[in-house]
Amino acid sequence: MRNSIKVFAPATVANVVCGYDVLGFAVNQPGDEVIMSLTEGKGINISKITGDDGKLPLNPTKNTVSASVQHYLNHIGKPDLGVDIELHKKMPIGSGLGSSSASTVAGLFAINSLLGNLLTNKELVPFAMKGEELACGYGHADNVAPALMGGFVLIRSYQPLDIISLPFPEDMHAAIVYPEVDVPTKDARQMIRSKVLLKDAVTQWGNVAGLVSGLFMKDYDLIGRSMTDILVEPTRSILIPDFYKLRTIAMKAGAVGFGISGSGPSVFALTKDADTANKITEKLKQHLQSISINSLSFVSEVNKKGPIILD
Amino acid sequence: MRNSIKVFAPATVANVVCGYDVLGFAVNQPGDEVIMSLTEGKGINISKITGDDGKLPLNPTKNTVSASVQHYLNHIGKPDLGVDIELHKKMPIGSGLGSSSASTVAGLFAINSLLGNLLTNKELVPFAMKGEELACGYGHADNVAPALMGGFVLIRSYQPLDIISLPFPEDMHAAIVYPEVDVPTKDARQMIRSKVLLKDAVTQWGNVAGLVSGLFMKDYDLIGRSMTDILVEPTRSILIPDFYKLRTIAMKAGAVGFGISGSGPSVFALTKDADTANKITEKLKQHLQSISINSLSFVSEVNKKGPIILD
Repeated sequence: MRNSIKVFAPATVANVVCGYDVLGFAVNQPGDEVIMSLTEGKGINISKITGDDGKLPLNPTKNTVSASVQHYLNHIGKPDLGVDIELHKKMPIGSGLGSSSASTVAGLFAINSLLGNLLTNKELVPFAMKGEELACGYGHADNVAPALMGGFVLIRSYQPLDIISLPFPEDMHAAIVYPEVDVPTKDARQMIRSKVLLKDAVTQWGNVAGLVSGLFMKDYDLIGRSMTDILVEPTRSILIPDFYKLRTIAMKAGAVGFGISGSGPSVFALTKDADTANKITEKLKQHLQSISINSLSFVSEVNKKGPIILD
Repeated sequence: MRNSIKVFAPATVANVVCGYDVLGFAVNQPGDEVIMSLTEGKGINISKITGDDGKLPLNPTKNTVSASVQHYLNHIGKPDLGVDIELHKKMPIGSGLGSSSASTVAGLFAINSLLGNLLTNKELVPFAMKGEELACGYGHADNVAPALMGGFVLIRSYQPLDIISLPFPEDMHAAIVYPEVDVPTKDARQMIRSKVLLKDAVTQWGNVAGLVSGLFMKDYDLIGRSMTDILVEPTRSILIPDFYKLRTIAMKAGAVGFGISGSGPSVFALTKDADTANKITEKLKQHLQSISINSLSFVSEVNKKGPIILD
C-alpha cells in the first residue's frame, strides 16, 4: 500500500432550486485538493493550507478535513494513526458551491484510499456530514453526498440516512457564476422561515417530484419547468445582486433552469451543452461587471465520478 | 357515430401516503358506470341514479357528472346538446376512493367518446376538476387525473396544470379496505393544519422524491421506505378506527407500504402480487370485524387504462 496520495474532490450544487436539503449534484470544476501522507508520528497534523487567505484553522480539532478524518479513524479503530494533511483550496470559500464539503470529501477519500478502501464512498457520507456540522452548524448531506458519489443525488431521509443516485441526461452541463459578495451559510440558513404554508409545501414537492421525474425521463423541458422554488429562493435571492435579472439573462440565453447554488451567492444554470453554458457564464459575468461586482465562473458537465486520485 | 354508450371509470387512491395533492393511482375495481345517450331534446337530463342510497342530486346543475359534462359542452361550443345520463354507483360514496371522481370521469369519457374524441383523456382533466370542486369544495386533480389516464400520475403543478404519467412495477397490486365509518372529504381537509414546519416539509419532499424514484427504478424497497407521511396522516388517521393496528397487520402480512387512501376512511396497501394483497384484505377485514366495524375490500392491479367502454 502507498504512503502518500493526492486527491481532488469536486464542488457541488445543493438544492437544485426546488430540492432544499434533499438534492444536489457534483461538477468537474472547481474543487479542492488534499495531499495526505501516513507518518510515524501519533495523530493528525495539518502541515499546510493554501488558497484560503488564512481563513481556515490549522488546529486539527477545528479543521473540518482533519475532524472528519479523525471520526473515520476512530470508527475503524485506529484513532492515533499518524497522518499529515496538506489542503490546497482551489475554490472560493463561502461561495455556496460546497467548499467545505469538497475539502472534507477529499480528505476522507484520501485516508480511505491510503488504508485500502475499507468503506465505499457512500459509506463515507456520514463522516463527511460531521465535517459539515463543524463548518455550517448543521450536518446536511446535499453537498457531501454528491461530492462523494458524483452525479445527481437524492437524500431521501436523514434519519436513517438514505441516499439515492439519480440518473441525468448525458450531455447536461452546469454554468456557475460566483459573484464576489459575502453570504455566510449560517446566516443564509437563519433567514429562512421555520414555518411554511402547507399549500406552498405542496407546490414545492410537486416540483421536486417533477425534477426527479425529468431526470429519469431525460426530459429537459420537465426538468426546467420543475426548477422553481417558492419557499427558500424569495428570501435567499435578496442577498444576491440583481438575482432576477441574472435569471432572465440566463433563461434568454438558453438555460434549462436557473437558481441559487446552495445558500448562495453563487448562481447556476443547467444547460443542454457546453456552448450554451459558456455563453451564459459570459453574459452573467458581463452583467455583474456592469454593476461593479467581480465574479468567477465555471462551466462543467455533471461530474460522473466523485473524488479522484491525482497522484 | 353511436348515439349511446356505457362507460366504466375506476376508483383511485390519491396522495399515496407522502404525495398529498400531487400523487394518485387508479385501480381496476371498484368503479362507477355511466350510460349516456344523445337525445333530440335540449340540455342535460339525469334520468336515473342507482347505488347512491338517494345521496346524489338529480338536478343537472348540482350533480358533478352533469355539471362537468356541461363544462365540456360549453367548451366545444355545443352548450344545448341533448344528453341523457344514467349513473350507476358501484362504489361507496365518501370512502376516500375517488367516488365522485369515478362518476365524473365516466361521464366525461362518455360524452367525449360519443362526440368522436375531440379531446384526449389528459385534456379532460380540467373539466373533471370542475366536478371535484362541486363535490369537495376544492378542485384537486389527484383522483381525476389517474382515473382518466390510468396508472400512477404526478400533478407537478396546478397553475398551470402539469400532469406526468409515472411508470410502476408491472406486478404491483393494491389491497384496499373501506371501513364503513363516515369521514366527509370536506371535514377531513379542514382538520389539516394550514402551516407546517419547514423541516417536516423537507422530510415529506424527500419521501415524495424517493417514491417517484422507486417507481422509475421499480424498486419496491425504496417505494416502501418512502411511503411515510408525517404531515397529514397523523391528523387524518384519528378518524380511522385502529389505523396503526391496521398498518402493523398489513406490513406483517407483506405489504410494501400502507396508508390512508385520499382523505379516508379507506386504507390501502401496495403489494408485489395478488396473493399478498388478498391475504392483507382478509386480515384487515377480520380485525375490523373484531372491533364491530363492517368493511368492504377490493384487490386490484394498478389500472393501466383509465376509463373503458363497456357497451
